[in-house]
Amino acid sequence: MLPFARVTLIGLGLIGSSIARAIRSEMPNVRITGHDADPRVRETARRLGLCDDMTDQPGTAVIDAELVILCVPVGVMREVAESIAPDLPADAIISDVGSSKASVLAALRAALPHHIVIPAHPVAGTEYSGPEAGFATLFRNRWCILTPPDWAGAASVARVRSFWERLGANVELMTPEHHDLVLAVTSHLPHLIAYTIVGTASDLEDVTQSEVIKFSAGGFRDFTRIAASDPTMWRDVFLNNKEAVLESLQRFTEDLTALQKAIRIGDGEALFRHFTRTRAIRRSIIEVGQDDEKPDFGRAH
Amino acid sequence: MLPFARVTLIGLGLIGSSIARAIRSEMPNVRITGHDADPRVRETARRLGLCDDMTDQPGTAVIDAELVILCVPVGVMREVAESIAPDLPADAIISDVGSSKASVLAALRAALPHHIVIPAHPVAGTEYSGPEAGFATLFRNRWCILTPPDWAGAASVARVRSFWERLGANVELMTPEHHDLVLAVTSHLPHLIAYTIVGTASDLEDVTQSEVIKFSAGGFRDFTRIAASDPTMWRDVFLNNKEAVLESLQRFTEDLTALQKAIRIGDGEALFRHFTRTRAIRRSIIEVGQDDEKPDFGRAH
Repeated sequence: MLPFARVTLIGLGLIGSSIARAIRSEMPNVRITGHDADPRVRETARRLGLCDDMTDQPGTAVIDAELVILCVPVGVMREVAESIAPDLPADAIISDVGSSKASVLAALRAALPHHIVIPAHPVAGTEYSGPEAGFATLFRNRWCILTPPDWAGAASVARVRSFWERLGANVELMTPEHHDLVLAVTSHLPHLIAYTIVGTASDLEDVTQSEVIKFSAGGFRDFTRIAASDPTMWRDVFLNNKEAVLESLQRFTEDLTALQKAIRIGDGEALFRHFTRTRAIRRSIIEVGQDDEKPDFGRAH
Repeated sequence: MLPFARVTLIGLGLIGSSIARAIRSEMPNVRITGHDADPRVRETARRLGLCDDMTDQPGTAVIDAELVILCVPVGVMREVAESIAPDLPADAIISDVGSSKASVLAALRAALPHHIVIPAHPVAGTEYSGPEAGFATLFRNRWCILTPPDWAGAASVARVRSFWERLGANVELMTPEHHDLVLAVTSHLPHLIAYTIVGTASDLEDVTQSEVIKFSAGGFRDFTRIAASDPTMWRDVFLNNKEAVLESLQRFTEDLTALQKAIRIGDGEALFRHFTRTRAIRRSIIEVGQDDEKPDFGRAH
């Protein structure tokens, strides 16, 4: 029993195209319609055969949809939702894959006040972008967080949950506000820090950029992967989850200042204590299957 | 033509045991003698057959050595060097694998004023520690930095260079001071930041540790690998490269403050510009073969 027979994807980048591929693989009878604002992406999506049908206008894509997923940067959610509003069937469920949820829920409600809105955030991705970067197994054993408003109705939530579970994800429900706090820490702050340090390293006078690149295996290269993520997507995330990001950044800065002081005064005890504690967190992440235990992420040696 | 016929390794953790394995694989005729201060590590090294001979005292291990490599935390270099001083042959070359070089050169000179000292730093490793974590290919296509003092003599430097090249490494020479500046940025600062953020995330009140672990695939998990590195080794690195670490941390904090302000005032332009610039650095690192281009470090999906 399929949760939805006709699914429309607006936006066919890394996430949208991965959903298309995962549907093909796990629910081959679902009819997929796709649209992307960028004609080159539409062209590529057609060439790859990602969807059963591609439309040049967003409205056309949603005409008979049961589920519409907006796979676009969170900064354009409202505008994109408005562009499909006139054509969206009254009983269609509208969802998204954005990395901030309170702002997205507000944007979708404003644009589609009479529709069932169930925001979603699959916590999965890679540093690559675009329709060719997607793959069918991206969501497997990753979490997908749903932040349905109270009025969404249990049956609709159950269908969206079932949809993501069929794609291989584990599903968790929480409020948009709590989502934004949790993801500020597990995703937005790490990206901000990575973007910062990669910038810092490339701006020094006494160490050349070529030295930074050459000797990056000492730890720096790990940060460059995250700092290679899509700039538009991440600009929008920071602008749309400002309070939670600034709050967690404040905590980070306090902790960094404490370690800085420990280094300055030569407090080896404090450093050792801190460095021992952080080891346990990685073990837990591996235990719950959210990372690989292979050394060095399993990089080839 | 082997650069050294008899090599002694003091310390058989991740790096020491990897050197032993790489010698076995690339220069099987070299005679390897090993010692570790920890009797359990000696026991494991004997069981694994890492060396041709294992000694219970450091002095015994160096009696007929041509090259002695200290693979111990930088904080105990002087003490360990002093412990082998009475038994070290006059023409033996002494080297190490420490992550800071100015302090190590000073420590080794103080302990062994009449010996040829050629400090080395193979920029390679994983987050695992101990004799079982090592492997023969760890140094392949990684850089090994030598920081020989002026009086070391070209022939001795050439032998140490040849030794590391035989293990698969690329070799670069620089002053200890410049090494410490470069590595502060490419290795020490990234570790400090990773240790900090992992601590921050596990200390929050409004987000539980189990949520941090569950949703770590949003970026956080990448930092936990580095923050799982050996606490003793890293405590010593920060205490022994204090000035360069604090200086690069200062630059990082300035840059972080600028991005923080851009978020606070909603300057999307500045964020976008910064995030676009950092993407290029990763491409360069992949181009020079210092990281894998596979998405997500090639993690299994």
